Amino acid sequence: MLKNRNISEEYIINNYLKKLNFNRPETFNFNNDAAFLNSYKNKKIIVTNDTILESVDFFKEDPPESIANKIITCNLSDISSMGSLQFAYTLSLGLPNYTKDSWLRKFTNKLLSLQKKYNFFLLGGDLSQSNKIIISSNFFGYVEKDKILKRTGSKINDDIWVTGNIGESLVGLKIKQKKIKINNLEKKYFLNRYLFPLHCPLGYKIRNYVTSSIDISDGFYGDLSKLINYENFGASLNIEDIPLSRQTKHLIKNRKITLDSLLSSGDDYELIFTANSKNSSIIKRISKKNNIKITNVGKIISKKGIYLDNKKIKITNKSFEHFS
Amino acid sequence: MLKNRNISEEYIINNYLKKLNFNRPETFNFNNDAAFLNSYKNKKIIVTNDTILESVDFFKEDPPESIANKIITCNLSDISSMGSLQFAYTLSLGLPNYTKDSWLRKFTNKLLSLQKKYNFFLLGGDLSQSNKIIISSNFFGYVEKDKILKRTGSKINDDIWVTGNIGESLVGLKIKQKKIKINNLEKKYFLNRYLFPLHCPLGYKIRNYVTSSIDISDGFYGDLSKLINYENFGASLNIEDIPLSRQTKHLIKNRKITLDSLLSSGDDYELIFTANSKNSSIIKRISKKNNIKITNVGKIISKKGIYLDNKKIKITNKSFEHFS
Repeated sequence: MLKNRNISEEYIINNYLKKLNFNRPETFNFNNDAAFLNSYKNKKIIVTNDTILESVDFFKEDPPESIANKIITCNLSDISSMGSLQFAYTLSLGLPNYTKDSWLRKFTNKLLSLQKKYNFFLLGGDLSQSNKIIISSNFFGYVEKDKILKRTGSKINDDIWVTGNIGESLVGLKIKQKKIKINNLEKKYFLNRYLFPLHCPLGYKIRNYVTSSIDISDGFYGDLSKLINYENFGASLNIEDIPLSRQTKHLIKNRKITLDSLLSSGDDYELIFTANSKNSSIIKRISKKNNIKITNVGKIISKKGIYLDNKKIKITNKSFEHFS
Repeated sequence: MLKNRNISEEYIINNYLKKLNFNRPETFNFNNDAAFLNSYKNKKIIVTNDTILESVDFFKEDPPESIANKIITCNLSDISSMGSLQFAYTLSLGLPNYTKDSWLRKFTNKLLSLQKKYNFFLLGGDLSQSNKIIISSNFFGYVEKDKILKRTGSKINDDIWVTGNIGESLVGLKIKQKKIKINNLEKKYFLNRYLFPLHCPLGYKIRNYVTSSIDISDGFYGDLSKLINYENFGASLNIEDIPLSRQTKHLIKNRKITLDSLLSSGDDYELIFTANSKNSSIIKRISKKNNIKITNVGKIISKKGIYLDNKKIKITNKSFEHFS
């Protein structure tokens, strides 16, 4: 998340980093949520990495369980968006010298519970002493050859789907920053969504039925643009179909937040994917079977840009967190 | 490199991190320089990671080329010590918002030249904005199944070998910190060894002839102890065989530095390995062919401890940088 920089992430990637990939197919030219390594004849190993930093991606006083949750969720979200199943990860920890046993216990117990829930193990890593908490992780997932989901691949008239509800984590952040004031019950709900977001694990299950996929790590609009820009397509969305929780709708109604801000930023860790409408019923069945909300929010169109109820959306802050 | 901590790295690894490896063989129970992933039938993918931090592992004003050199060298050193050949890496960059084009150009051009020299490509990564420079990297290497070099495996009477010269980087650091004052020519020599250390790429070439291997990232004594401690063995070393450059010998003679300090700390990125003495001549041939100095410094013995000319060495600062 490089923002307000003279030198943007896109600029750094295009001008300095792309020359380092030697045009290897494994890197997707840094255009996807992850890269891959060749493995057994019919399999690829999906590789992704993410770093989270104190004062940037979390606060020092956040519960250790929340910090553990964040490094796992942002990586598992990339693994899922590539249509793969996680199996291992590495962990680089930079910890201040005042780190206590109680912090380490809570942090690693949360890692353990997420590892058991999603079935993956810690492969290795390293430890450093640092002023601030720094956590960097590489995740590994398996996927059958030719079944990797990518940002490219959508077709005109494909349905656009999104999982879960949008904007929950952003509201939690704004409450934490005291930019939104609400009652305690709602506060608790949104803070929990901010502190303990979970990735959408559907990527592997829908991989046979979708044409493209991305996870929401830079806001719904920003990530949807990445999908459609690669194909020079556009997206037509219906405002009433945007999936929002009852609590979020309540906030919008009371003018505590705008729909536009909810769609423009925030780490939702939900998936946006596109599919031919013939697969609509099977996608709904997968949704029901896994008890995960999936909503058809619109269509891929030939006209460039994102349109919400036919009104063109201005995308201002296109950030690029990953280069794989 | 966690030092002067109430909670040591070893303590963190044993008490909090080992439970996360689910006893998977791929992790070596966090006892080696790297871990592995299963791959094609006859191959493993060796995985290692290392993070370097401003003010801890390098200084802000160090040349960008030196910082690039350091993240590559410390990882390639682990890849080599496991008997494998590098082929790819990921890079997580945390950069201050004042980072200039000229810094990025120099940093990435050095990465590019090392990639070409050692034949590996950048698979992917991520970018964050941070107050200090943070560089985390995962490296991937190939090795044939059953050919992985480990810290375990040495036998009593095995020869102990070490590559290159010891202590060069430490002298450079002390000169930079103005703890040693010498003439300009020597200063330039040692600063270069500190700023641009290179790993010893022999691991893959000697893998068929050695019984155990480790790279020197925490000082010669510390890393040698790790090799012998796993087997409950000892090491008998001959002081006159310790490989030192002419320049270093000169410093010791002039009492600017002690041999003991050179052997106790510093990132040499050389290899220590053990081999049956029947392989002595082939190891010397490999050394000659690759124009890399390899020195037989002693023998593995049944008596515990490290002995230099029969005098037992006290190992005080056993640090543990990696948990894989």
